[in-house]
Amino acid sequence: MSKEKAPRRPRAETPKGFRDYFGAEVTERKAMLDAIAKVYQLHGFEALETSAVETVEALGKFLPDVDRPNEGVFAWQEDEKDWLALRYDLTAPLARVAAQYRNDLPTPYRRYAMGPVWRNEKPGPGRFRQFYQCDADTVGAPSVAADAEICAMLANALEAVGIERGDYVVRVSNRKILDGLMESVGLLDLNDPSYNAAERGIAMRAIDKFDRLGESGVEKLLMDGREDASGDFTQGAGLNYLQALSVTTFLMQRLPTNAETISGLRSLLAQSVRGLEGVQELETIAALLDAQGFGPDRIVIDPSVVRGLGYYTGPVFEAELTFEILDDKGNKRQFGSVAGGGRYDDLVKRFTGQAVPATGVSIGVDRLLAALRAKGRAEAPAPGPVVVTVMDRDRMADYFAMAADLRNAGIRAEVYLGNPKQFGNQLKYADKRASPVAVIQGTDEASRGVVVLKDLILGARIAQSATLEEWKDRPAQVEIPRSDLVAAVRQMLEG
Amino acid sequence: MSKEKAPRRPRAETPKGFRDYFGAEVTERKAMLDAIAKVYQLHGFEALETSAVETVEALGKFLPDVDRPNEGVFAWQEDEKDWLALRYDLTAPLARVAAQYRNDLPTPYRRYAMGPVWRNEKPGPGRFRQFYQCDADTVGAPSVAADAEICAMLANALEAVGIERGDYVVRVSNRKILDGLMESVGLLDLNDPSYNAAERGIAMRAIDKFDRLGESGVEKLLMDGREDASGDFTQGAGLNYLQALSVTTFLMQRLPTNAETISGLRSLLAQSVRGLEGVQELETIAALLDAQGFGPDRIVIDPSVVRGLGYYTGPVFEAELTFEILDDKGNKRQFGSVAGGGRYDDLVKRFTGQAVPATGVSIGVDRLLAALRAKGRAEAPAPGPVVVTVMDRDRMADYFAMAADLRNAGIRAEVYLGNPKQFGNQLKYADKRASPVAVIQGTDEASRGVVVLKDLILGARIAQSATLEEWKDRPAQVEIPRSDLVAAVRQMLEG
Repeated sequence: MSKEKAPRRPRAETPKGFRDYFGAEVTERKAMLDAIAKVYQLHGFEALETSAVETVEALGKFLPDVDRPNEGVFAWQEDEKDWLALRYDLTAPLARVAAQYRNDLPTPYRRYAMGPVWRNEKPGPGRFRQFYQCDADTVGAPSVAADAEICAMLANALEAVGIERGDYVVRVSNRKILDGLMESVGLLDLNDPSYNAAERGIAMRAIDKFDRLGESGVEKLLMDGREDASGDFTQGAGLNYLQALSVTTFLMQRLPTNAETISGLRSLLAQSVRGLEGVQELETIAALLDAQGFGPDRIVIDPSVVRGLGYYTGPVFEAELTFEILDDKGNKRQFGSVAGGGRYDDLVKRFTGQAVPATGVSIGVDRLLAALRAKGRAEAPAPGPVVVTVMDRDRMADYFAMAADLRNAGIRAEVYLGNPKQFGNQLKYADKRASPVAVIQGTDEASRGVVVLKDLILGARIAQSATLEEWKDRPAQVEIPRSDLVAAVRQMLEG
Repeated sequence: MSKEKAPRRPRAETPKGFRDYFGAEVTERKAMLDAIAKVYQLHGFEALETSAVETVEALGKFLPDVDRPNEGVFAWQEDEKDWLALRYDLTAPLARVAAQYRNDLPTPYRRYAMGPVWRNEKPGPGRFRQFYQCDADTVGAPSVAADAEICAMLANALEAVGIERGDYVVRVSNRKILDGLMESVGLLDLNDPSYNAAERGIAMRAIDKFDRLGESGVEKLLMDGREDASGDFTQGAGLNYLQALSVTTFLMQRLPTNAETISGLRSLLAQSVRGLEGVQELETIAALLDAQGFGPDRIVIDPSVVRGLGYYTGPVFEAELTFEILDDKGNKRQFGSVAGGGRYDDLVKRFTGQAVPATGVSIGVDRLLAALRAKGRAEAPAPGPVVVTVMDRDRMADYFAMAADLRNAGIRAEVYLGNPKQFGNQLKYADKRASPVAVIQGTDEASRGVVVLKDLILGARIAQSATLEEWKDRPAQVEIPRSDLVAAVRQMLEG
């Protein structure tokens, strides 16, 4: 299509960073989310679906600048009025709902939400500007029993979608023990947030890189600094060796039993009231989970979990898939994180002035779906339909009746509705539709009251096979009485 | 909350015209859409989920004006680049997909799509700016067999969600017979679209009001004009009496059998080639449907169907629910239309320059859901959870274990996670959650290895009942061994 000829034709393209989902891509995700929703429901969580559009004011975080407040969000101004924006997650709308309906909702309010969110970010490979989130939160429950419940429910949800026990672990830590750690190495004064703030930031970022840099790398960053492979130098947090050592020791305190981990943490944080409070919470969580049968093979206390430090105020958790997959370069690596969450106690306060305790988890829908596919656990796509071919244009009613008979027996079926002139095109169509069986009835067959069934799956196998020998007992094409259509197709499908 | 004290607190409100959906509102709709999707799949239709955001250019219809192209849509400009907008229906994105992937998709391409769409319109009572659509379309099938298939599938879908046979009818007409009618009364010259265009517009609008104004009202509008109850005068189309009569006769040609209707239309449109072509198409559709067992009790030829005249090019259809409901004023009226569609052959052409035949249907999700609720056919909301109350804060682990036992038996259950101090609040909570059973275990019960079950449904009935006599044999509260928890709760639920 040349530009000169048709300069005004619109481009048939999604906007950059957006994509379409076809067939099994839609139904696999849906089946996974349905299974998760069922688990959430069983735990007493209620569905909530907020609108995609919120006022920028209610979304918060992204405040309007002079002209356009669309840093990170898709936003627009109503004629001379409010700025509106697409939600960027499901938590900000929940906070708005919890404030708006605070007199009507039960307290605590357990809710789950599933749906797309939008980010106005630079798209990259595999990074889209619209994607699904799947959240469960409990609003209004101050007790860490609510956090324990979320962790247990997350484990149940992972198993419900097909991640086997042993293939995942939910790691739990607590923002308060990190605070305690910072206190004990002199990087935090709870009465003066600005004290050593820069050094604390460096230390926190170093801790966050523990997975990647390991013990010695993190120690360098905690002390004088570190030169990376490219020669770039990162300034350190200025701790001495013993202080740095206590940090890395802390990070490695995931011991064989939760009791040992808790005991170790209690020693390390003995001098921090905040830290010990966090350890106590973790101990309570571990006890509650233990009583429900969730041992450390499924949910484990692990102080190396570091999530959204500015956001969470208590327990934090992360679900990790522990089986290995091959990365782009063919190297084995652990699949990694598929969900995370924690306690955040300040979101509703923005609206009402009253602190409302809340905790929740967000499952990375695309990541988890990729894991299910990697394990062959994604819902099998619907089989292609039986295609009733059209040999005789005047007998469409007969073909439709055949398709209807098949459907009434629960078999997916359709009549070919393209141009029927070239029969080859009909078989190509059936191939594109991954059709298992083609039904054929020309004038001759009709006069004899029969139809021909073509086993397309067998046909494809024969085409791929080096030898026809193994197939010779099973004909790829059979003629049967019209009255046997449903039974014969079913037999072929079960073949 | 006074404005002086907290002037910068955001309002906890959805933007005007948007709303939130809670619990059963979400799950009822989902169950309905799931049932429809199953029918569509069975007919060989594939799921498609396009992004919510499209370029304004691809959406078409709403072309950018100088400043903001957001007439009717929510639109915004990417930094100095494309204008983007939220989709306003599911057909425009389908046309874009059909063009973008034309070399990869099967031809014909049968797809269904379900999801929210957005309209930047003035909100009103019950009119929202975000709402669900549920579409099925066949792209690339020129034959009216595709239209017949859509009609049959629509009937199947309505029955699948719980609309009984006899409570709905799919009415089918054809844009071409309306053209033929206009030709035969001298209001259309197929070679000169501008000929009598104004009068034709008046006549078409009059026809569209046939339901409401009846025969004599429409005749007036077709002739000299009509004064309404308020005294306003609407100019007529200038037909003479015989011409007007032929129009109203046409509109009333829905006769007891499709054969009679077709024969009647054929007489009325004898002088219009276009009209007769339309009648022929209707006859084919009726024959195809008849062969699949869809008689006029379910799908009927009805020339009074008038839909989106600028858009459709061939068969048009509308599903109507025929049972009566009470309107706001307490008057009985038919429930009315819940779905509509037809053939549109020009949408893909915008992108590629090549005409691509297409036909499809859109179900009004909110309307159909309202109908199911009116008939008591909406999916029953999930029962409220069994609430395990907290009598002893130190024994949370025991309470969690009880809830886990119940869930493992498939019973929805949760532990009360609010402040447990006041037991009355826990029962109020259970009431708000529509909980059927409260589980109670204080220190004394724990020491004896028992739990108390409170039948909250029975309790509510007793509270409403004038006499306690009828309940006396059924205690609203029982003490049972802890080991019998699951069995006893189940028995109470089955009550």
